[in-house]
Amino acid sequence: MKTVKIGLMGFGNIGTGTYKTLEMNREIIKKNTGMDFVITRILEKDTERERGVQVTRDQFTQNPEDIFKDPDISIIIELLGGIEPATSFMLEAMKNGKHVVTANKAAVAANYDLLMDTAADHGVIFKFEASVGGGIPIISALTSVLQANDYMEILGIVNGTTNYILTQMTEFGSEYEDVLKDAQARGFAEADPTADVEGIDVANKLAILMTLAFGIRVKPEDIPRVGITGITKEDIQEAAQKNEKIKLIAAAKKDGEGKIEYSVKPMRLPADHPLAGVSNEFNAIFVRGNAVDELMFYGKGAGPLPTGSAVMGDVIEIARKTIQ
Amino acid sequence: MKTVKIGLMGFGNIGTGTYKTLEMNREIIKKNTGMDFVITRILEKDTERERGVQVTRDQFTQNPEDIFKDPDISIIIELLGGIEPATSFMLEAMKNGKHVVTANKAAVAANYDLLMDTAADHGVIFKFEASVGGGIPIISALTSVLQANDYMEILGIVNGTTNYILTQMTEFGSEYEDVLKDAQARGFAEADPTADVEGIDVANKLAILMTLAFGIRVKPEDIPRVGITGITKEDIQEAAQKNEKIKLIAAAKKDGEGKIEYSVKPMRLPADHPLAGVSNEFNAIFVRGNAVDELMFYGKGAGPLPTGSAVMGDVIEIARKTIQ
Repeated sequence: MKTVKIGLMGFGNIGTGTYKTLEMNREIIKKNTGMDFVITRILEKDTERERGVQVTRDQFTQNPEDIFKDPDISIIIELLGGIEPATSFMLEAMKNGKHVVTANKAAVAANYDLLMDTAADHGVIFKFEASVGGGIPIISALTSVLQANDYMEILGIVNGTTNYILTQMTEFGSEYEDVLKDAQARGFAEADPTADVEGIDVANKLAILMTLAFGIRVKPEDIPRVGITGITKEDIQEAAQKNEKIKLIAAAKKDGEGKIEYSVKPMRLPADHPLAGVSNEFNAIFVRGNAVDELMFYGKGAGPLPTGSAVMGDVIEIARKTIQ
Repeated sequence: MKTVKIGLMGFGNIGTGTYKTLEMNREIIKKNTGMDFVITRILEKDTERERGVQVTRDQFTQNPEDIFKDPDISIIIELLGGIEPATSFMLEAMKNGKHVVTANKAAVAANYDLLMDTAADHGVIFKFEASVGGGIPIISALTSVLQANDYMEILGIVNGTTNYILTQMTEFGSEYEDVLKDAQARGFAEADPTADVEGIDVANKLAILMTLAFGIRVKPEDIPRVGITGITKEDIQEAAQKNEKIKLIAAAKKDGEGKIEYSVKPMRLPADHPLAGVSNEFNAIFVRGNAVDELMFYGKGAGPLPTGSAVMGDVIEIARKTIQ
């Protein structure tokens, strides 16, 4: 049986979730693919943390070159987050002939063309299913089985933190600040929640979705953006009286002339809209194509194991295409 | 630019929808793939029917050999429906080196191994995204991006006719027979509705989903099956009083020992279950995997254009993998 050796960059929550996903399901993956996948090297400073996985000290390195130059490694997973040094590391991996998988929406949104072109120049595959919607397979759907469509509209709830906050405000009539503090205490919101609550994370994801669906490049910082910090319990109650729910929506729509209109902002949705029932940490992406009509994908948009599912799905797809 | 020539077997509603999908979106597909897709030959007796598409008399043939033996055709789409002669035609196409795409759940459910093995023996690709859930990309999700999961459970609303009937009975408090007659008059139900209302169509689809998710082969006729003909308006009202909805569900679940339990039957779902809100002709498939957790895919499970979207998605994927 062929063994596929993988280098992992970043061993935080998502890195650990990816490692766990492979550990849990290695035998099933072996049976389905006829290949054995092993994460042999891990770029990570913190070698002491208890992660609940079987990993030996000599798998760790603090020198990315040890992974780029390892002739046995064919696929590198980048889970460092942030634009740099993640982008530089991914480019360097590609230049060394490694296929690259990432969950890093900021790096993909900022450097999509550079990453795709570099992969093409070096004959390697670049995949990023986990960058939007976590475990929800929206990226592969848009770029494969739905590709016979002219896409008309995308609406997404693609940030679990803000959806959790809005859901709690709706269900318990609470104020934004109180729910945010509670979410921080429970680990559903970061200590500095800016990227989530101001819609920056959502803008990164919308930039990626628009590139795939409409072929346009919009910088995340050029997307008109309103976060949820100004939403009051009165806004939510007023919407509820009209049988509507307030959701933070990434929206992109093709107008009559083929121009794409886009925004990230809180929107009031009628209660019977497919996205209105998406609660708490769940994400969902609604797509309208001129052939397929309305589709919706719903699931866990974050979390170590759902994200690990998407990352490992990409890894297996690359191995199927290039190894065997 | 490379031209990909396609043979089409069957030019009824779904065949016409597939042809229309390609006609509508040929330029977009060209731009996205760098390939031009053309349906050059069509196996169909009825050459006179007005279908609202541009097709010339000499594209038609009544001899399948004209398509199997055409050296310019690389992909054959089978949309005849039914187990035979569709299965024999698909096998013959493969033996002649043609890749095959189908929407035919009865043929795939009945002859999955034979079709897959014959494709492998002849080095061609066999795809059937449209066979379950119409335009909903459940097949490719289960077999690619979700393949790092151990699947725990699948629940599907995968028949639009029965979901339409149950929805109308629920919304208007009508009796089954009255709604069925109305659905037949509107073209939402067949003159002979047996395959739909007795759950036979759903059993075919569940057999396919179980093969992909759990690797087991169950004959559709061996799936315990209850249709919707016995559902009364009183049943629906009684469920509503407990805030539940009755849906015809294809269910497969892995028990503690890894054994798969399966059935097709009307089930009462709590109103807040993701499948409870799936109304009328819409389909949805709920999947639980040990890494990705809960996912749901929602969309149009039938209809000429949504099905055409899935068929052409498969065709494009095959061309990307084999031609260029």
